[in-house]
Amino acid sequence: MATTDTIFQHGTLGLLVPGLFDGTITAKELLTHGDNGIGTLNGLDGEVIILDGHAYQAREDGQVSEIGPDESLPFASVHFQKPDVSAPLSQLSQAAFEEKVVADYRLTNVFAAIRIDGTFSYVKTRVAPRQQPPYKTLVEATATQPEFEGHAVQGSIIGYYAPHLFQGATVGGFHLHFLSADHQLGGHLLGFDIDQATLKVQHFANFKVHLPIDNEAYLQERFDNAAIDSAINKAER
Amino acid sequence: MATTDTIFQHGTLGLLVPGLFDGTITAKELLTHGDNGIGTLNGLDGEVIILDGHAYQAREDGQVSEIGPDESLPFASVHFQKPDVSAPLSQLSQAAFEEKVVADYRLTNVFAAIRIDGTFSYVKTRVAPRQQPPYKTLVEATATQPEFEGHAVQGSIIGYYAPHLFQGATVGGFHLHFLSADHQLGGHLLGFDIDQATLKVQHFANFKVHLPIDNEAYLQERFDNAAIDSAINKAER
Repeated sequence: MATTDTIFQHGTLGLLVPGLFDGTITAKELLTHGDNGIGTLNGLDGEVIILDGHAYQAREDGQVSEIGPDESLPFASVHFQKPDVSAPLSQLSQAAFEEKVVADYRLTNVFAAIRIDGTFSYVKTRVAPRQQPPYKTLVEATATQPEFEGHAVQGSIIGYYAPHLFQGATVGGFHLHFLSADHQLGGHLLGFDIDQATLKVQHFANFKVHLPIDNEAYLQERFDNAAIDSAINKAER
Repeated sequence: MATTDTIFQHGTLGLLVPGLFDGTITAKELLTHGDNGIGTLNGLDGEVIILDGHAYQAREDGQVSEIGPDESLPFASVHFQKPDVSAPLSQLSQAAFEEKVVADYRLTNVFAAIRIDGTFSYVKTRVAPRQQPPYKTLVEATATQPEFEGHAVQGSIIGYYAPHLFQGATVGGFHLHFLSADHQLGGHLLGFDIDQATLKVQHFANFKVHLPIDNEAYLQERFDNAAIDSAINKAER
């Protein structure tokens, strides 16, 4: 039975930092753990947006397409959607939204999924460019990456709020992706202004991390917590 | 069905640091998630050792007793025992053991349960002293705590190795407790020398953290990651 009180995360944000970009879970398997979420593909090839059981890839060329079941991902977070909050939002900047949602729904120390469906007066995304082995570090790989903008866009924001204690395992704070309804604009969300939208928040009691413990590069890596923290702040915000 | 590829952890080590010592899960519920593990009780009242489905409390007065089903815990980690490694150990210091087990079983970036049954030429434990609200911080509460020693002791070490990336959520590295076979010596393990014993290692693909998201003190706390890291290194090693 699908559990709705758990975020399932494959991999860690930390493993992307030194450049462990090989996919270690298939999209097919990932979707058995959730029907909404975010991630990246094998080779850091773009941004993954998962909505209502369909996983999409936003690529560095600006194109969006549905991900095949056998494509693989080094990092992704998913959950089965069953929001415990549904609220209208109107004329709200990103900063005002983030402050409001943390305060109103007491997110500070709680994992939550955030989904916002509606119209956005402004959206800015970026998309990680596909890498080839031997991989660079995350900060090097994302030093130059295409950004995309839209005005008066209809679409969906999907992602998570995580307690800052879990920075490294994941992104502490907000980590949001976007996909427009017409699939012309997508990616990791850098900025947005809400026009009219519906917010759905789902609080989770459980955070389940699934690690690629059969992956040789993962087993061998010597991670550095301070470097991971700094790289996440640089590359994922 | 009992899952043997997952560590279930209630709470975080981080929440103990500012003094959130109120129990937020019953022993009865905890034992539905595992039959071996470690933890602490409501009010930081001693050290919890869980072996083969029985949860024991080692108290600051040196006494050990079985924990009742309705007693509660602020922090605990458990799993259902199904080791994938069983190996004899002989004449091994703690330092030599830790180096050997990380290298031989490739633990660096992997969660694993460690259980060692046998005779120990030396064992040193400490036991956190029971606190009363309003609670002190973890470092203050454990500044003076009783230590216990044994020589030629038969008993069991139980605990975990966690990747250092998860320091804060849990203890990065080893976190081991001890209980003697005659229940005369128990606690958080400060040092040991193995005489003759059997090591069991169980690697986990999954780490599942269950947070007390209905606990008011937890929701209100403003955690400080750097302070948590420092306090764990001081109080839990």
